[in-house]
Amino acid sequence: MPNPTAAMLVIGDEILSGRTRDGNTHHLAGRLGDSGIDLREARTVPDEQPRIVEALNALRGAYDHVFTSGGIGPTHDDITADAVGAAFGVPVDVRDDARTILAAHYASTGKELNEARLRMARVPEGATLIDNPVSAAPGFTVGNVHVMAGVPAIFAAMVESVLPTLQGGTPPVSASVRVERGEGDLAGPLGELAARYPDLSFGSYPFQDADGRHGANLVVRGADGARVAEAEAALRAAFA
Amino acid sequence: MPNPTAAMLVIGDEILSGRTRDGNTHHLAGRLGDSGIDLREARTVPDEQPRIVEALNALRGAYDHVFTSGGIGPTHDDITADAVGAAFGVPVDVRDDARTILAAHYASTGKELNEARLRMARVPEGATLIDNPVSAAPGFTVGNVHVMAGVPAIFAAMVESVLPTLQGGTPPVSASVRVERGEGDLAGPLGELAARYPDLSFGSYPFQDADGRHGANLVVRGADGARVAEAEAALRAAFA
Repeated sequence: MPNPTAAMLVIGDEILSGRTRDGNTHHLAGRLGDSGIDLREARTVPDEQPRIVEALNALRGAYDHVFTSGGIGPTHDDITADAVGAAFGVPVDVRDDARTILAAHYASTGKELNEARLRMARVPEGATLIDNPVSAAPGFTVGNVHVMAGVPAIFAAMVESVLPTLQGGTPPVSASVRVERGEGDLAGPLGELAARYPDLSFGSYPFQDADGRHGANLVVRGADGARVAEAEAALRAAFA
Repeated sequence: MPNPTAAMLVIGDEILSGRTRDGNTHHLAGRLGDSGIDLREARTVPDEQPRIVEALNALRGAYDHVFTSGGIGPTHDDITADAVGAAFGVPVDVRDDARTILAAHYASTGKELNEARLRMARVPEGATLIDNPVSAAPGFTVGNVHVMAGVPAIFAAMVESVLPTLQGGTPPVSASVRVERGEGDLAGPLGELAARYPDLSFGSYPFQDADGRHGANLVVRGADGARVAEAEAALRAAFA
């Protein structure tokens, strides 16, 4: 059975303006890989409902899972819950279980659960809450869409809350061989090896160190560890 | 006149597998902002021609410019030029001016311009070359699509080669106010200010320092510096 597939949707003007460098996609990619879920696409869109809805509907139809980051805080620019509701055609309202979580959290920290904070208890109808052990305000899953915070520490914690609930696949096995020769000299033999192992994927990632050394990291990936080990040995033999 | 719009298309299995963290999108976002070109979307797709073609055709129809990174080296997994040719329905072949650039470069470095390296002179019919002052092998522009290398230093150099050829817009003016209070306490007054300045965009970006201090950076952006300054003063007054 092929691995489940996934897409990431980053929601945030601050990424597109250059103010903030997204790292949530990279974090998610690594954790999904560990679970044998293949991340197949990532998109970033601005904080505009029609753009979020359009991207959500394209991605949730194309992949087994969609993960989103950003736009679920208490301020006026946090519009993700409403956009997800619009994408699924369901109403969005404050829900009792989410309100209870927030009320307990703010009671314990001596802060007021005011109207703005209560916005974080608004979830689309039919959603399941995602636990947030960092700052309480939950994420949520609707259908195959997992909606998480943009703050990296909270995003990462929510990923750990969601992953155990998902059916995983076979984590790929990979091996990397560092070769200090120009890619142009490696390309011929590498292409021949890739043709000899059509069940594996071969990548060449050039590097240039600060001291001027350059070359490429050759990476072979696949589902079958024995085949990857065989291909790695062939790579080492070819570029010894 | 509204600013020109742009999208970024990152091409690379290594980003989606979690091996490499993309930084080219962040770099491009900053440089486009300086030029008054609005980055409106970013996508990452794997090294698969149908996926690249589909994304290119969606993005080049929707935005004034599309910038791509990755997949223009000499190895078998470098398929971007062919994908761009397929997206535009034009043939891709070694071109004399690109071959001349590569021949001069490899002659000067004592390396052979072999078949693999000559692949880097293959460009779609009708393309304009993009200068690569780092490692010679050029990028290219076809229509409104600017095709650049994935290696960050080369990507950045190619961005500098392309930007002067594009019509820019009005760089947005922004101001940032750091407030050490929870977002839930800022949200109400911030929303009121955002409603009072509908021509500006207001963002709230929560932070948590290592020492436990937390709050939000409130950012106001717009085309008119005087209006942004007025809104910044209003923010400072509201959260003094």
